[in-house]
Amino acid sequence: MSPRGFILEERDLLALSLGAALLGTGGGGNPYIGMLRTRELLRKGASVEVLPLDALPPDVYVGEVGGIGAPVVSAEKIKQGEECLRALRAVEATAGVRVSALISCEIGGANAMEPVLTAAQAGLPVLDGDGMGRAFPELQMTTFFIYGQSASPGAIADDKGNVVVFKDVVDMYWLERFARQIAVQMGAAAGFCTSPIRADFVRRNAIPGTVTQALEIGRTILDARARRLDVVDRVVATTDASVLFTGKIIDVRRELKGGFAVGHVIVAGDGQNAGCEGRIAIQNENLVLWVDGGVVAMVPDLIINLERDTGEPITTEMLRYGQRLAVIGLPAHPLMRTAAALEVVGPAAFGYPEIAYAPLGSTSTGTAP
Amino acid sequence: MSPRGFILEERDLLALSLGAALLGTGGGGNPYIGMLRTRELLRKGASVEVLPLDALPPDVYVGEVGGIGAPVVSAEKIKQGEECLRALRAVEATAGVRVSALISCEIGGANAMEPVLTAAQAGLPVLDGDGMGRAFPELQMTTFFIYGQSASPGAIADDKGNVVVFKDVVDMYWLERFARQIAVQMGAAAGFCTSPIRADFVRRNAIPGTVTQALEIGRTILDARARRLDVVDRVVATTDASVLFTGKIIDVRRELKGGFAVGHVIVAGDGQNAGCEGRIAIQNENLVLWVDGGVVAMVPDLIINLERDTGEPITTEMLRYGQRLAVIGLPAHPLMRTAAALEVVGPAAFGYPEIAYAPLGSTSTGTAP
Repeated sequence: MSPRGFILEERDLLALSLGAALLGTGGGGNPYIGMLRTRELLRKGASVEVLPLDALPPDVYVGEVGGIGAPVVSAEKIKQGEECLRALRAVEATAGVRVSALISCEIGGANAMEPVLTAAQAGLPVLDGDGMGRAFPELQMTTFFIYGQSASPGAIADDKGNVVVFKDVVDMYWLERFARQIAVQMGAAAGFCTSPIRADFVRRNAIPGTVTQALEIGRTILDARARRLDVVDRVVATTDASVLFTGKIIDVRRELKGGFAVGHVIVAGDGQNAGCEGRIAIQNENLVLWVDGGVVAMVPDLIINLERDTGEPITTEMLRYGQRLAVIGLPAHPLMRTAAALEVVGPAAFGYPEIAYAPLGSTSTGTAP
Repeated sequence: MSPRGFILEERDLLALSLGAALLGTGGGGNPYIGMLRTRELLRKGASVEVLPLDALPPDVYVGEVGGIGAPVVSAEKIKQGEECLRALRAVEATAGVRVSALISCEIGGANAMEPVLTAAQAGLPVLDGDGMGRAFPELQMTTFFIYGQSASPGAIADDKGNVVVFKDVVDMYWLERFARQIAVQMGAAAGFCTSPIRADFVRRNAIPGTVTQALEIGRTILDARARRLDVVDRVVATTDASVLFTGKIIDVRRELKGGFAVGHVIVAGDGQNAGCEGRIAIQNENLVLWVDGGVVAMVPDLIINLERDTGEPITTEMLRYGQRLAVIGLPAHPLMRTAAALEVVGPAAFGYPEIAYAPLGSTSTGTAP
């Protein structure tokens, strides 16, 4: 064990899940089943060490694994459990390398847990960071790909034993395209592994500390609940988050389009926002928040819906009429705010070319509390 | 050069194309562009030897390559030309073997020429046989897969440099499913290579002599045209083919369904068939021929539409009102008529479970001449 890392304990898993759900900004899938599997392995003696990004020698390789498919499906169609491990092994065989650690592509939602599960299966450590600092719907939307990770070889595996390798792929958009089609054929619930990444590249280009961040957010929520404190207040007090809007949902539109949950939610303001109307655009994740028509927050910054009373993060498919929300914002990491990153994960990349990215807090509408 | 094989000459290419078009039974795509590419390579000094199935030592490997996609697209979207070669190299690398020869998956249509083109590029011989003795629309419909060829590793490659490897695949139906989706993403024109096949397996399970058969049919047509003889008569006189029906097309229904050209054609009989009505069901290829409601011929036997006057094989997309047809039948090879084969390529596999397979000539309707 590295003196600078830490061992993930069984009690950490629930906190990690909760924090990951919050960072999922409505999407990313539910980490619950992955958590149960990981817990079983830990109880049977497996041990997963979380290492800081700079713990590895520069020239070893890191594997990026996760689930791909429709979050709704993955909750109902239970995976076999070693999909990501099989994808990892296929990538290692194709690239001719062995990885020394795993990292999450997205800390938001289920893919916070998948690398931990695979690490427990493979006897590898996981790195304290990820490629998004949140959740996003497509493979290319990671800092790894944005800053030059090779699009191939990658691999995808299902519960039946099928393993497809993307041996040579022109770019990360082609990878997404191929992988998405195969994932659909695999029943919209599969495990993937992208090309091995050198540790020095990961150190420069991963969003750092996000496993710890998710753990701490989760612990804050659990602690506040145990002590009957206001969860939203405690999250805001202990993180960079701010409350952007509060109110009651008066309309939800949500449809499946191209495999994504697309739509919007309308929130009638209350408290400080009484008389105002909030609107959140959704593509799996929350994309843009308007208040009275003015843009208050947008991707890649994090727009998070918490249930006002319990502080529970509300995923997109759980939004419904009458829920009372606290919409909170968390600034994206600077690696997600560069011109190169905004091309891939800014408002235009999600179909809002008319919205120029403005960092959270800098918008001038003044309707946010 | 083997004393028992022969070198494919430039003048053979047109004959091979014509014979392959006839054996395509309406589908299989147009071998014209592949023929032009192969001709260029032969003119630049490449040489392709055609070997009998028993020419290879039993334990060397054979590669099965071909085009996959929509025939209509491949005529308009010109390939880069080395798609099959890249797929072959990916399969060799994944399987850890080098192949000693190539073989066609289907002698009918464009895939008669693809292995010859790849052979010219790779400096390999081609075997005198194929996996269908005709054309069929899906990957699993070869004698190789029917009799036990491993479904993986296979590979598919496009014109842009994308190569996807089907590393582990549960069965040949999954292979078809994955490959079809990737082919569509690749623009419905891609090259594939299935798993390496041992030479002794090929010897037992390939339809033998079909390169020679296509060449001879093509030469017969060219010779009859040059000598102004009746092409249909000459084809029937020199092969096992028989005329099943003659007449004029009075109705064509054809639509794209799931990537296939599906429909039927109605033929008003003339000559010996005057007063009778023929009906041919189509899924890319001609599937079933009825005369006055009685089944006369069905898959896997070959149902071939020749233009009455010129003897030109008519592909499905070229069928139109008013054409005068000679519908001829060719018996499928015994390897395509076993119970195992009929499960994959018999009438039921194409959506006609009510039609029990009866070999060509054995049907009792008596309406065929």
